[in-house]
Amino acid sequence: MTSEIQKNLVEKNTEYARTFDSGHLALPPAKKYLVVTCMDARIDPAAAFGISLGDAHVIRNAGASAKDAQRSIVISEQLLGTRCGMLTFTNDDAHALVKLNLGPAAAAEVGTLDFLPFSDLDNAVKSDVEYLKKTATVPEDVKISGWVYAVETGKVRQVV
Amino acid sequence: MTSEIQKNLVEKNTEYARTFDSGHLALPPAKKYLVVTCMDARIDPAAAFGISLGDAHVIRNAGASAKDAQRSIVISEQLLGTRCGMLTFTNDDAHALVKLNLGPAAAAEVGTLDFLPFSDLDNAVKSDVEYLKKTATVPEDVKISGWVYAVETGKVRQVV
Repeated sequence: MTSEIQKNLVEKNTEYARTFDSGHLALPPAKKYLVVTCMDARIDPAAAFGISLGDAHVIRNAGASAKDAQRSIVISEQLLGTRCGMLTFTNDDAHALVKLNLGPAAAAEVGTLDFLPFSDLDNAVKSDVEYLKKTATVPEDVKISGWVYAVETGKVRQVV
Repeated sequence: MTSEIQKNLVEKNTEYARTFDSGHLALPPAKKYLVVTCMDARIDPAAAFGISLGDAHVIRNAGASAKDAQRSIVISEQLLGTRCGMLTFTNDDAHALVKLNLGPAAAAEVGTLDFLPFSDLDNAVKSDVEYLKKTATVPEDVKISGWVYAVETGKVRQVV
């Protein structure tokens, strides 16, 4: 069953992909910066903060908490290779790199943090959707779907 | 000292605020949905996924992890009042609401989660910048600044 929101996603994305010409952008942010901002629906970071496509990592959570963003910040600094960065490392790699590049104090702060890497994009999406369907923290009447966005084409594709 | 990135932020934001006419938007997302997507610099969720300003909460982290987004998802569902939602509750409120609205299974999942509320916007920004300057997980040569974005005017203001 396709909801209004899913219809809107597919229609707007089809339009977006039609004129998309940024498939060449590299994974590392071109301007080497990172923005932590709020999930607030009234914020459009790209437009309001002048972030051009490919320029900066953008982390968003409730209240723009830097502590909450720790995992993502460390991955942004240390771990991104090419294409999907999450596919390129294991937890052991991540912890070894933190120790090597940031030192023992950073390793101690990070502790046994799960960097939540994954080895397959579609399976990662499926497993996140399963988690959201199973968790008691999301009411059962909430509709959940999972999609993959291709940075090469600008197109979304529904996985589940 | 103003960096190129800060200059870009101020210039582009001044331009954005000049024609900004969405200061009337309410805090609850107009279309009542939430998107979890990756922090990847090559994704512009508003443009690529057709999210109009004010329509949806947008959470972004490394790999678009739903588990990592748990705190923000629960706040999105349960806790947002008017203006800045983070100012409107305490951890005790949050845990009480989870138990009341989502039940004991959700309360157990959430455990002793710190919802990271704050009572003053500028102080929250300062304390996050202090955290980022102190943490060993961010190298010392990384420049860090903290800003507040006013949803009423579209303007950013540097705090630290």
